[in-house]
Amino acid sequence: MSYSAAVSGASGYAGGEVLRLLANHPEVHIRTVTAHSNAGQRLGELQPHLHTLADQVLVETTPENLAGHDVVFLALPHGASAEIAAQLGEDTVVIDAAADHRLENPADWEKFYGSAHQGTWPYGLPELPGQRAKLAGARRIAVPGCYPTTVLLGLAPAFASGQVLPDDVVIVAATGTSGAGKSLKPHLLGSEVMGGMSPYGVGGGHRHTPEIEQGLTWAAGEPVQVSFTPTLAPMSRGILATSTAKIAPGTTVDSLREAYAAHYDAEPFVHLLPEGQWPATKQVVGSNHVTIQVAVDEHAGRAVVVSASDNLTKGTAGGAVQSMNLALGLPETAGLNLLGVAP
Amino acid sequence: MSYSAAVSGASGYAGGEVLRLLANHPEVHIRTVTAHSNAGQRLGELQPHLHTLADQVLVETTPENLAGHDVVFLALPHGASAEIAAQLGEDTVVIDAAADHRLENPADWEKFYGSAHQGTWPYGLPELPGQRAKLAGARRIAVPGCYPTTVLLGLAPAFASGQVLPDDVVIVAATGTSGAGKSLKPHLLGSEVMGGMSPYGVGGGHRHTPEIEQGLTWAAGEPVQVSFTPTLAPMSRGILATSTAKIAPGTTVDSLREAYAAHYDAEPFVHLLPEGQWPATKQVVGSNHVTIQVAVDEHAGRAVVVSASDNLTKGTAGGAVQSMNLALGLPETAGLNLLGVAP
Amino acid sequence: MSYSAAVSGASGYAGGEVLRLLANHPEVHIRTVTAHSNAGQRLGELQPHLHTLADQVLVETTPENLAGHDVVFLALPHGASAEIAAQLGEDTVVIDAAADHRLENPADWEKFYGSAHQGTWPYGLPELPGQRAKLAGARRIAVPGCYPTTVLLGLAPAFASGQVLPDDVVIVAATGTSGAGKSLKPHLLGSEVMGGMSPYGVGGGHRHTPEIEQGLTWAAGEPVQVSFTPTLAPMSRGILATSTAKIAPGTTVDSLREAYAAHYDAEPFVHLLPEGQWPATKQVVGSNHVTIQVAVDEHAGRAVVVSASDNLTKGTAGGAVQSMNLALGLPETAGLNLLGVAP
Amino acid sequence: MSYSAAVSGASGYAGGEVLRLLANHPEVHIRTVTAHSNAGQRLGELQPHLHTLADQVLVETTPENLAGHDVVFLALPHGASAEIAAQLGEDTVVIDAAADHRLENPADWEKFYGSAHQGTWPYGLPELPGQRAKLAGARRIAVPGCYPTTVLLGLAPAFASGQVLPDDVVIVAATGTSGAGKSLKPHLLGSEVMGGMSPYGVGGGHRHTPEIEQGLTWAAGEPVQVSFTPTLAPMSRGILATSTAKIAPGTTVDSLREAYAAHYDAEPFVHLLPEGQWPATKQVVGSNHVTIQVAVDEHAGRAVVVSASDNLTKGTAGGAVQSMNLALGLPETAGLNLLGVAP
Repeated sequence: MSYSAAVSGASGYAGGEVLRLLANHPEVHIRTVTAHSNAGQRLGELQPHLHTLADQVLVETTPENLAGHDVVFLALPHGASAEIAAQLGEDTVVIDAAADHRLENPADWEKFYGSAHQGTWPYGLPELPGQRAKLAGARRIAVPGCYPTTVLLGLAPAFASGQVLPDDVVIVAATGTSGAGKSLKPHLLGSEVMGGMSPYGVGGGHRHTPEIEQGLTWAAGEPVQVSFTPTLAPMSRGILATSTAKIAPGTTVDSLREAYAAHYDAEPFVHLLPEGQWPATKQVVGSNHVTIQVAVDEHAGRAVVVSASDNLTKGTAGGAVQSMNLALGLPETAGLNLLGVAP
Repeated sequence: MSYSAAVSGASGYAGGEVLRLLANHPEVHIRTVTAHSNAGQRLGELQPHLHTLADQVLVETTPENLAGHDVVFLALPHGASAEIAAQLGEDTVVIDAAADHRLENPADWEKFYGSAHQGTWPYGLPELPGQRAKLAGARRIAVPGCYPTTVLLGLAPAFASGQVLPDDVVIVAATGTSGAGKSLKPHLLGSEVMGGMSPYGVGGGHRHTPEIEQGLTWAAGEPVQVSFTPTLAPMSRGILATSTAKIAPGTTVDSLREAYAAHYDAEPFVHLLPEGQWPATKQVVGSNHVTIQVAVDEHAGRAVVVSASDNLTKGTAGGAVQSMNLALGLPETAGLNLLGVAP
Repeated sequence: MSYSAAVSGASGYAGGEVLRLLANHPEVHIRTVTAHSNAGQRLGELQPHLHTLADQVLVETTPENLAGHDVVFLALPHGASAEIAAQLGEDTVVIDAAADHRLENPADWEKFYGSAHQGTWPYGLPELPGQRAKLAGARRIAVPGCYPTTVLLGLAPAFASGQVLPDDVVIVAATGTSGAGKSLKPHLLGSEVMGGMSPYGVGGGHRHTPEIEQGLTWAAGEPVQVSFTPTLAPMSRGILATSTAKIAPGTTVDSLREAYAAHYDAEPFVHLLPEGQWPATKQVVGSNHVTIQVAVDEHAGRAVVVSASDNLTKGTAGGAVQSMNLALGLPETAGLNLLGVAP
Repeated sequence: MSYSAAVSGASGYAGGEVLRLLANHPEVHIRTVTAHSNAGQRLGELQPHLHTLADQVLVETTPENLAGHDVVFLALPHGASAEIAAQLGEDTVVIDAAADHRLENPADWEKFYGSAHQGTWPYGLPELPGQRAKLAGARRIAVPGCYPTTVLLGLAPAFASGQVLPDDVVIVAATGTSGAGKSLKPHLLGSEVMGGMSPYGVGGGHRHTPEIEQGLTWAAGEPVQVSFTPTLAPMSRGILATSTAKIAPGTTVDSLREAYAAHYDAEPFVHLLPEGQWPATKQVVGSNHVTIQVAVDEHAGRAVVVSASDNLTKGTAGGAVQSMNLALGLPETAGLNLLGVAP
């Protein structure tokens, strides 16, 4: 195993998922795991599912502890990464699961995050048109958000092929609770979550909105505008995104399926399902796979695309490892040959 | 208790919920319960939660067994109600939980249900503009579908007040599995459902689409067209509907809230939540209540309305009992003073 | 409505359930609701399922605010009730959902709760032999714990009829997460709870152990000793208790069923199920009912009793209201005619 | 990849899990997948989570189709394996996930399964004392049941070290619904399962009872007798077993922990957790790991052992692959280096 890795935020859900994937990566070994309030504890206490890593001890998340690795994963709250990256040396591959360097437009960043923009890093979604080349050999990578990953993979071929219109995209998505992390908030208690659904960030306020628009704008080659409503579903993992856009004249389900097939046929992790089959999040839980199906509602004049992912895997840690593979020149699928755990 | 009731389909989820509500209704007593393949069994075997009705024995669903009651609830597959109703006498209040007599337009019926249209009955959603008067004293009532109930209550005030546009409504809703009934289908197994979400009827094919459009058209006074996507969520009960429509010039969140407040302030079961609070299905599970909140996404030019209901209560059996109360001239809330069972 | 009630701890799950039941109680009106950190808020913000009580404002939990009511419900952490009760006047019915006055043996209290014993109040489980008479007209009532309620109702007839032996009782029970309240602990997060089961308090450490032994000792007329293991299940509500004891010579499933039938046939809330039917927590969720079934494993020489309850209803708030009814001389079932919400 | 495999019952949950594990096995390739009513379909339709195997087509489960492979997995209802095995040649490794050849005692088989006993094969639980040697090079292997796997791993060291008594073992276990397979039964519907718990096979009737007693008897060296009660929990995967036995004089939690540590320290998949940590099924979901913790309840005179597994992985398919590795002389952990998917 040629490459050494440090994983910060190793006591959280995103950090834990990075560790789960790296534990079986053929070319990377986990040398350092860091945390903040949990420093000093064994991983076995905090991530008891990572049996083979149980005895690794968390150290404080400091630039000193993160320095000297080939790869550093940042699974920290946004705001921390630019400063840490500056102290890690330009040869280190820094992969940031937070939002800091995803947005190109400083105004978007400031509006949605309320702080100064710290620059833009290559966007770790290789299946978007043109992105894979930017990730090869990169030394700084911004991992996309879990909703943007799922929505962009779902809509990009439709926009890239000019078959849908950019001015009135409507997206409603459901996420599992792990997307909210381990923070102790009343509405995330099991008693509140189980057996019910609720929305949040309604009306355009969710921070993933500008990120979705940015990615769709890249794909469309013109500005795309979306209405995005996230909802919280009673499950630990998974995102199901229902994305609709008005169809351009001449668009049919066949023409859309053709575009998707062409776009994804060579992709190892993104799958247009056969006609008649629809994505379900359980098909992809624990895996780096994304499934997609498209329909055309001629009555409403809209294409409807449903895409499913595991928010922690392809939506965060899997996307991070996939990008790392590209950055290091490894096979893109290394360490990611996991299948969904169903049922 | 002045009125006698018969409940057909009493071994299913909808029939069971009707029984749960009638069991404590102050003016109605359950005289007859009927079923098909389960005839001859005790209710205690099939609906073990209905402790006080455990010893009532199911008889065959025939016009003879249903005749002679003041009220007959039909919780049967669509197709059966017209024929049965014809044999029940015009004085009997027949309340049909199936779809047969919901749609006014025969073409819609034939397109979505594939059989001959059997006529239209008063539509059991008293909170829709103009509907309550039609239900008072009615002897035939079509109970709305669970999705239409939830969506129509969510969008009606926006359309009735002319604040949203009719030509591009997008609705994505999540339902609990009880909406699919007790039918033994592989995708409804607990192992398949728990921990995941999936869509169905994508692209305009769901039978509730024309019913939603009909109700919105009534509210708007002009034809409304919707894109409707239902999804299956890992919960037994509950519908969360996210409905969006383009706003008319001048519409603000305040002007919308004002219209909703005016529309629902006197309603016992439909609640515009205070600003900042959003509907969650757990708030209404087991109750006849519906909660609503609205937002305006100015960036996208859309109003976003979220509404939550219990698909079996307000969405089926509660709406049925509420309509029965109107038909019989009883207080509209009789037997329906249940609060949500949370958490 | 002749009686005024105050409910303390009204922002928690137990307090919320008391309110849900009292909201429809024919003889009691809720005059005061109190809380600690949430004082000043509307109930609608904290218990959004209690639609009809939404505008009631929480006041601080003080003896002054609780004084002057006919009934006071204490849904507070243990330790607070004796002091408050002393300031409420001897005519006030004080119903304590905490553990303070459940145990007769001061040594048990001190061992399991680590503080000084504050005396014993009548034990609010009227279905236990001899208890109902003690509750009639009582002015201080200790509501049983949710596990003891479920286990004692399950085992009492077997012990009272001398058909099982007292020296080696083994109980394993599963509870929904609401039993742990709204406290913000990592292991109670939805992400941790959903899709998994785990034990806690293993090895005799759970505080309900001495309470279970006390109740069984009452029923048996000789000291009973139990091994009790609670587990946390992925559901909001419900307790399923599997209780086994060695059978006395001559005990058969028929002799046991006879004893249970005799014991419970006149009880409105406790039901021995017909042969072949087994309790399921969903049958009783939201209701004050408890279901029971018994088996004899001749091979192992043990009776196995399974009982199911809703931990918040019969296990807490329903038991509290039932006891209040007895204390006030009302019909025991007043306000409790709710059926389980299934599915 | 040197070995060819056929998997029968490939459309079910057990067969699907075997495929999930073999898909990444370094030394085995899946040549044939068989089914009965689903023959002719693509795996992608029936097991959509197995993305990399989606295009493999199911053929009929016949001896002809299964012949000619190095390994054959039988994931069929019991009753079929002896006949098929007889037609497969003695060199083929036949691994049977059904119960047919697990029990040594024909009387037990006949009592619990009601048919003629077909002989006993080596029992695929290498962590039981003495079992590993019997599996090395074996050509016929009976995969243990999921409950026996979890219970036996939990109790074997206590019995092997003589620290618990054999005459009064009590076991209560909770399983996820996948243990019941894909059969379409009403009580397995999501609506029935979600949010509730229920028991089944109470009173000694579950077929895993004699298998548990057999394994414990092997470990103890004297007859062991158990009371076993299984329950159904609202989760797809996982077993949590709470097993208690009376302690022999001198047994302490330390002496037990010592025995477990000695027994399992070299095992790759079975883990005695550090003091204070308790098993949770989510720690092991999707993995071949089992976690264990022990307590001594001195008051009750019982040891309490809790063990957690994934019923489909270590409890079925993982145990099968682990046994196959031993049979073929491969590293025991080959293809099984998966970690639990949490949260």
